[in-house]
Amino acid sequence: VVGYDLTRLVVGSEGTLAIITEATLKLTPKPEAVRTLRAVYADMSAAARAVARVMAQPVTPCALEFMDASAIALVRSYAAADIPEGAGGLLMIEVDGPAAYLPLAAEAVAEAARGEGLLGLDVAEDEAAVERLWQARKALSPSLRKAAPRKINEDVVVPVSRIPELIDGLRTISERHGILIVNFGHAGNGNIHMNLLYDPADPRQAEAAPACLDEAFALVLRLEGTLSGEHGVGIDKRDFVAREIEPVTLELMRRIKSQFDPHGILNPDKGWPARAGGAPDAVAERRL
Amino acid sequence: VVGYDLTRLVVGSEGTLAIITEATLKLTPKPEAVRTLRAVYADMSAAARAVARVMAQPVTPCALEFMDASAIALVRSYAAADIPEGAGGLLMIEVDGPAAYLPLAAEAVAEAARGEGLLGLDVAEDEAAVERLWQARKALSPSLRKAAPRKINEDVVVPVSRIPELIDGLRTISERHGILIVNFGHAGNGNIHMNLLYDPADPRQAEAAPACLDEAFALVLRLEGTLSGEHGVGIDKRDFVAREIEPVTLELMRRIKSQFDPHGILNPDKGWPARAGGAPDAVAERRL
Repeated sequence: VVGYDLTRLVVGSEGTLAIITEATLKLTPKPEAVRTLRAVYADMSAAARAVARVMAQPVTPCALEFMDASAIALVRSYAAADIPEGAGGLLMIEVDGPAAYLPLAAEAVAEAARGEGLLGLDVAEDEAAVERLWQARKALSPSLRKAAPRKINEDVVVPVSRIPELIDGLRTISERHGILIVNFGHAGNGNIHMNLLYDPADPRQAEAAPACLDEAFALVLRLEGTLSGEHGVGIDKRDFVAREIEPVTLELMRRIKSQFDPHGILNPDKGWPARAGGAPDAVAERRL
Repeated sequence: VVGYDLTRLVVGSEGTLAIITEATLKLTPKPEAVRTLRAVYADMSAAARAVARVMAQPVTPCALEFMDASAIALVRSYAAADIPEGAGGLLMIEVDGPAAYLPLAAEAVAEAARGEGLLGLDVAEDEAAVERLWQARKALSPSLRKAAPRKINEDVVVPVSRIPELIDGLRTISERHGILIVNFGHAGNGNIHMNLLYDPADPRQAEAAPACLDEAFALVLRLEGTLSGEHGVGIDKRDFVAREIEPVTLELMRRIKSQFDPHGILNPDKGWPARAGGAPDAVAERRL
């Protein structure tokens, strides 16, 4: 607390403020062991309510991944997936810590995962079972590549309590535009990977995909979310930034950049919407 | 990661950048139960080595407080303290979590606490024992008030591995200036409360105390520490800031402030060293 926290300001700035030449990291001890659980639900609402229960009890999982109905259907189409019939939402949960503690931790998490809509709950007892439970989740990325020639993969974030609304809304948007949207991600912090799958050689799909993405982003912001959780903005999302950050804040950020980078030479054109008038302004001019 | 992390920039800025009108906090579940341990060592080096061992194993304590020899001696003088003879360093350790997990967690921490120089290790089995173990630590603040008419209480931080050097160095400084320095704090993150105790009515002590503090701060910075961990800078430490933060960084921070506060009206005179020339400059002028 001596001076301002410039480290956090620079983290996530995508090279627009400074070049990091040295970093000191704090390490946490490697956990002694891990236990894996898989919970399958009738729909994402039931899965999301389970996520809320899991996060509210004292044993915080080290992994809490979800797949929605579209992701489950995709894996079923392209890979052998051992998932109960009628599954509309799936959670992969892992807890870690001292080996002797894991049975207790797994039971605490399993207890929270149980509830309305649960179709099946498995706790892996050995390495082979861990592999089997992760199989559907791990088959997802290869399946996405097989499903369509092109994939727009966005990592949006919404409050955990809004995940069901996001998934429901994305299904409506997907149906309206005739573009497949497949969702999975990190349920514990609301970070969702939404994947728009389409064929750019199909004129209808090529036109529908950007409109579909546009509506999806609008939905995320309506749910008090953010357009990127971990992938960043770069060039791809720069034109969406002004929808999320209000003009006065954006202008303040530009001015902060100009203090670090008065000549606009640090990763120009990244992370910022073009100024009104059209041309991207890499040099954030100082205008007090 | 959309835009810059202004939240972290504002946190710890002591009201010099913005007025916070609303904050959304993430809550962690309340732990089901807590277990308390007290480990007493022959000297602070042994205690500090134990801290390193405790922090390197997978069960991270929720509290890890220490008292050095001067703090133990002070408590012995002003309160009834049940501490083994020859104690030169004391650790209060607490672990929390599900009740069924605590015996395991306490044993993991106790195992790490054991080692060369350990004089005694107690694990509280009931509420009365918890009270008894915390007694010496809780008697410390009242004892500090009794020991001298004035107390300079600074919360410095050094890397955990440098705690023994800091404590040794402070003892040397204390002896040279004839000013009592009593140290305790949060060993797990290297945050040390060093207390200079003196009588301002005694001309020798009144002159020695600021010189003693000056040397103590110089030692902290030599050990790659920082002059404040949680108390902040305010007015009291503002003239020391330039010793810790190099001029180019300090100037960058001033320029960032000027973007938030062009008229210099936000908590002026706090947190910043006076400019060369003498007068405090609340308005951080923009000079590109």
